[in-house]
Amino acid sequence: MTSTTTAAPQRADAPQIAVLPRPGDDGDAPPDYFIESVHDGGGLTGAVSDETGGLVIAGRVDVDDLSRLLTGRPGIGWIQLPSAGIERYADVIAAHRDRTWTSAKGAYAPPVAEHILALTLASLRRLPQLAATKTWGPEVGSPLYGSKVVIVGAGGIGVEAVRLFRAFNTDITVVRRRQEPVASADRTVTTAELDTVLPDADVVVIAAALTEGTEGLMGAEQLALLKPSSVLVNIARGKLVDTEALLAALRGERLAGAALDVTEPEPLPDGHPLWDEPRCLITPHTADTEAMVRPLISARIRENVRRWAAGEELEGLVDVEAGY
Amino acid sequence: MTSTTTAAPQRADAPQIAVLPRPGDDGDAPPDYFIESVHDGGGLTGAVSDETGGLVIAGRVDVDDLSRLLTGRPGIGWIQLPSAGIERYADVIAAHRDRTWTSAKGAYAPPVAEHILALTLASLRRLPQLAATKTWGPEVGSPLYGSKVVIVGAGGIGVEAVRLFRAFNTDITVVRRRQEPVASADRTVTTAELDTVLPDADVVVIAAALTEGTEGLMGAEQLALLKPSSVLVNIARGKLVDTEALLAALRGERLAGAALDVTEPEPLPDGHPLWDEPRCLITPHTADTEAMVRPLISARIRENVRRWAAGEELEGLVDVEAGY
Repeated sequence: MTSTTTAAPQRADAPQIAVLPRPGDDGDAPPDYFIESVHDGGGLTGAVSDETGGLVIAGRVDVDDLSRLLTGRPGIGWIQLPSAGIERYADVIAAHRDRTWTSAKGAYAPPVAEHILALTLASLRRLPQLAATKTWGPEVGSPLYGSKVVIVGAGGIGVEAVRLFRAFNTDITVVRRRQEPVASADRTVTTAELDTVLPDADVVVIAAALTEGTEGLMGAEQLALLKPSSVLVNIARGKLVDTEALLAALRGERLAGAALDVTEPEPLPDGHPLWDEPRCLITPHTADTEAMVRPLISARIRENVRRWAAGEELEGLVDVEAGY
Repeated sequence: MTSTTTAAPQRADAPQIAVLPRPGDDGDAPPDYFIESVHDGGGLTGAVSDETGGLVIAGRVDVDDLSRLLTGRPGIGWIQLPSAGIERYADVIAAHRDRTWTSAKGAYAPPVAEHILALTLASLRRLPQLAATKTWGPEVGSPLYGSKVVIVGAGGIGVEAVRLFRAFNTDITVVRRRQEPVASADRTVTTAELDTVLPDADVVVIAAALTEGTEGLMGAEQLALLKPSSVLVNIARGKLVDTEALLAALRGERLAGAALDVTEPEPLPDGHPLWDEPRCLITPHTADTEAMVRPLISARIRENVRRWAAGEELEGLVDVEAGY
């Protein structure tokens, strides 16, 4: 890693990359490590110009501004987005599908899959309720060991979660859009078959991208299929789960627990009834904190700048049709 | 499995096993599955008599009564204890070391090691604090992934915990009494070297038997060696950790968290200050609940009855000198 952000490499053939937002833009200036990562990958950084070949989005930018910028700069061939979920950028990606778009998809899999395990084990073993208790109570909790796990989503996070769940001798079903088995799972079914695998599940994990096809995926009907002893974990996007239906299921004790790193609305407002549900554990979108993400997005940018310069295929290519 | 507890096998050479406590004893009658397990292993069950060759302890029995019983029954060659930790029976074992003693050691490793992971992940990711929060807060928590884990104890639970931690790409040091490496760990040190490995640890797990040599193992001096970002997990016995010193460390924010499935005193009395420590998660000795343990102790008894009848070495043999 370079230790300075000013001494950019001087190779004449180095790709010219603009990191947005720039200091002075409405958004916050990007953390230095974004710029360092471009340099580490062999790129030059600077303001957007006719020489700019790529953009690295390091923070929140206005998507309309981004779209106008791209329209005026046909030389920008590649845009790196900072998150794994890209639904915020869906329109600008669609409007500029001639460019190469990459995201952080897959890069954050280790910390997010770990959070899935943390939330799953906490829910099964009733840690939220025990944390709120101030007396030595009776035995509670059920084991993950040997249980049936359904993971919705077969991206980097879903596949990493399969690997971690495997260590606990679980039976694992992956639910995905496409008809293509995940080799490490016990079985893979398509989203159309979701309702058939829910009744047996002890654990249901939502790890799918938010698309038109997945919004409201876990509705009242799906929640009603779950066993009262089962737990639901959502680390994807709040809109994949029907909040009102989930609240009703928890209140009716038709679920043993829910653990949510994402909510709808998000942030979950003060006073929202989910905050008062003893069976509901809410973490404020901290599956991957900035400190956890930093080395991972840095590696993704470094590698993609290198590949872009070398004309190689980039990591984390966005599938424009699929929406992730 | 047999479906009845009355139709015992009738083979003439079947071992005669008494399951204690008997209905009518001071203790509770043993659950039926203890008796079924003896039958499944090929044994006959009945009251203690001159024909009794083995005892299966299925619940709390008075150790003095047990000692007197053994003195009067020299024909009882084998005693199976129901728990992994056997410090309660240390004196009676020592007084009757000519008999074969077996415990549940190793049998409960899967659920207990899983609880270790649950408590570790919960502490690192601040789930007790988040469970108590009713507002969307800032990012908190640190990852297990890539961290340094110290596991004190190399019994069945410690070794199973190594296997689970391994999935999270951790660096694992095992601390054990004997100088014999645990193959799956990154390094093994003896208890005498404990103080040298604590300063680097992100996670310290206490999974050792309670013996004269391990009581108070984690005292004020050891806790002072830990990083303020580290977490302590105890699923062994409360007396391995100095409760007052731990309380002081948590209050002084010299530890990021502690998660205790066992306490000293245990049960932890209402009003004890540990209940009010936001960084302390207490589970009421539920690493292995009765429901989780049932199939595991059943398998141990079944197998040991079979081996006893066949003259083979038993599983879970107590090391009388070591005290576990």
